[in-house]
Amino acid sequence: MTHRIEPRSGVAIELSRGDELVVIDREGGQVSDLVAYAAEDLGEVISNGRTFDYEESVKLTTGSRLWSNRSRVMLSILEDTVGTHDFLLTPCSKDTFRHFYPDKPVHQGCFGNLAAALAPYGIGEDAIPTAFNVFMNVPVDKGGKLRVDPPISKAGDLIRFRAEMDLIVGLTACSAYASNGGTFKPIDYRVEKPGRSA
Amino acid sequence: MTHRIEPRSGVAIELSRGDELVVIDREGGQVSDLVAYAAEDLGEVISNGRTFDYEESVKLTTGSRLWSNRSRVMLSILEDTVGTHDFLLTPCSKDTFRHFYPDKPVHQGCFGNLAAALAPYGIGEDAIPTAFNVFMNVPVDKGGKLRVDPPISKAGDLIRFRAEMDLIVGLTACSAYASNGGTFKPIDYRVEKPGRSA
Repeated sequence: MTHRIEPRSGVAIELSRGDELVVIDREGGQVSDLVAYAAEDLGEVISNGRTFDYEESVKLTTGSRLWSNRSRVMLSILEDTVGTHDFLLTPCSKDTFRHFYPDKPVHQGCFGNLAAALAPYGIGEDAIPTAFNVFMNVPVDKGGKLRVDPPISKAGDLIRFRAEMDLIVGLTACSAYASNGGTFKPIDYRVEKPGRSA
Repeated sequence: MTHRIEPRSGVAIELSRGDELVVIDREGGQVSDLVAYAAEDLGEVISNGRTFDYEESVKLTTGSRLWSNRSRVMLSILEDTVGTHDFLLTPCSKDTFRHFYPDKPVHQGCFGNLAAALAPYGIGEDAIPTAFNVFMNVPVDKGGKLRVDPPISKAGDLIRFRAEMDLIVGLTACSAYASNGGTFKPIDYRVEKPGRSA
C-alpha cells in the first residue's frame, strides 16, 4: 500500500528491522527530509557525521549505510534511481524561511513538520538532527561553497532503504522553495516486509 | 594565561559572551575537536548542518560563524592562520578506533574525552554532536569521497573565536592517528577578555 505525504507536510513511520521503506518522487523534482531514531532508545539518532566517518564519503547511494550517533547502522540503501541526495543541510524551519525568503510567508517547514509528527513519541525539537535529504541536490564547489539546486529526480524515481534495527522514522514532503525548484509536490512512500506473505 | 591540553585529552571551558578563545597548535600538525553548548540551556548545541545552511559553505575560516541547532550564532571566527578545518566528521571514539585501527589499542578518543570533560555539566554522550574539528584536514574529491590527511598547521598557528553567547565549550587534543599525521601532541589555548584590563 502506497501512502501519500501531502505537499509541505510530514509523517512518522514505525519500521521493524528488515522492513523496506521505499520513498517515491511521484511527480519529480521534490525533496523529502528523513530522520531516524532507534525505537528501543530514542537517544540513538541518525548522524551525518558518523555516516561520513564510516562510509568515507559524503555521496550516499546504493550500497551506502546511514549510521547512528552510537556507531550502529540504522538504514541501508538497497536501491536508488537518482543517486543525488544531501546530508549536509538541516531541515527548513521558520528561522530558515525568515533568513532565506524574507519576502515570503513564514512556514514551519520540514523542521516544524517533523517536530509535529514526532511529538507523539516524545521526540522534541532539539532532538531533530541534520536530516538525510532524499533527492536534494546540493553541489559543493572546490572552494567549499554550496548551492541548493533543483532536484534531478524525475517522476517515479525512488530510493529503497532497509531498516537495520527497529526505527521511528520522520519523513516529509519538503516545504522550501529552493530545494524543490520553486514548487511543492507530494511524496509517496510504502513499507514492504520481505519474506512475509501479503 | 595560556593553558595546555595534554596529548589525547580534553577540557571544558566556560566562556562569557564577548570572550575570545584562542586555540593554538603549539607544535604543528595537531587537531583539536571543539563542541559548544549555550550555558543558559544546554539543549542548544553547535550544529554543522545549521552552520552549512547559513554560511552557505563547508569551508569555514575568518569571518565565518558557527551556528546552533536553534539558528543562533554561537561563535565567530575572528582570526585563522590556517584556513583548513573540518566540520563533517564526528569525534574519534572507542568505536572508530575499533573500526579504523583494529590492530591498535582502543582509546576513548576525543568522544570519550569530551564526554568526561562535559559530564560535570550534565552533558551526556548522546548530546555530543559532530564537532568543529580545528586544524583537521579532510579533502573531499569530486565524487564525494573523503580522506583524512595530516593537518597543514605549523607550530604556532592559531584560530581565534569570539563567543556570541555564554557558552560551555569542550575542547580536545585529538587522539586519532590519521587526523594528526600519526603523532599525538598537545594543544594550547587561552581565553581573552577584550576591553577588560588584566
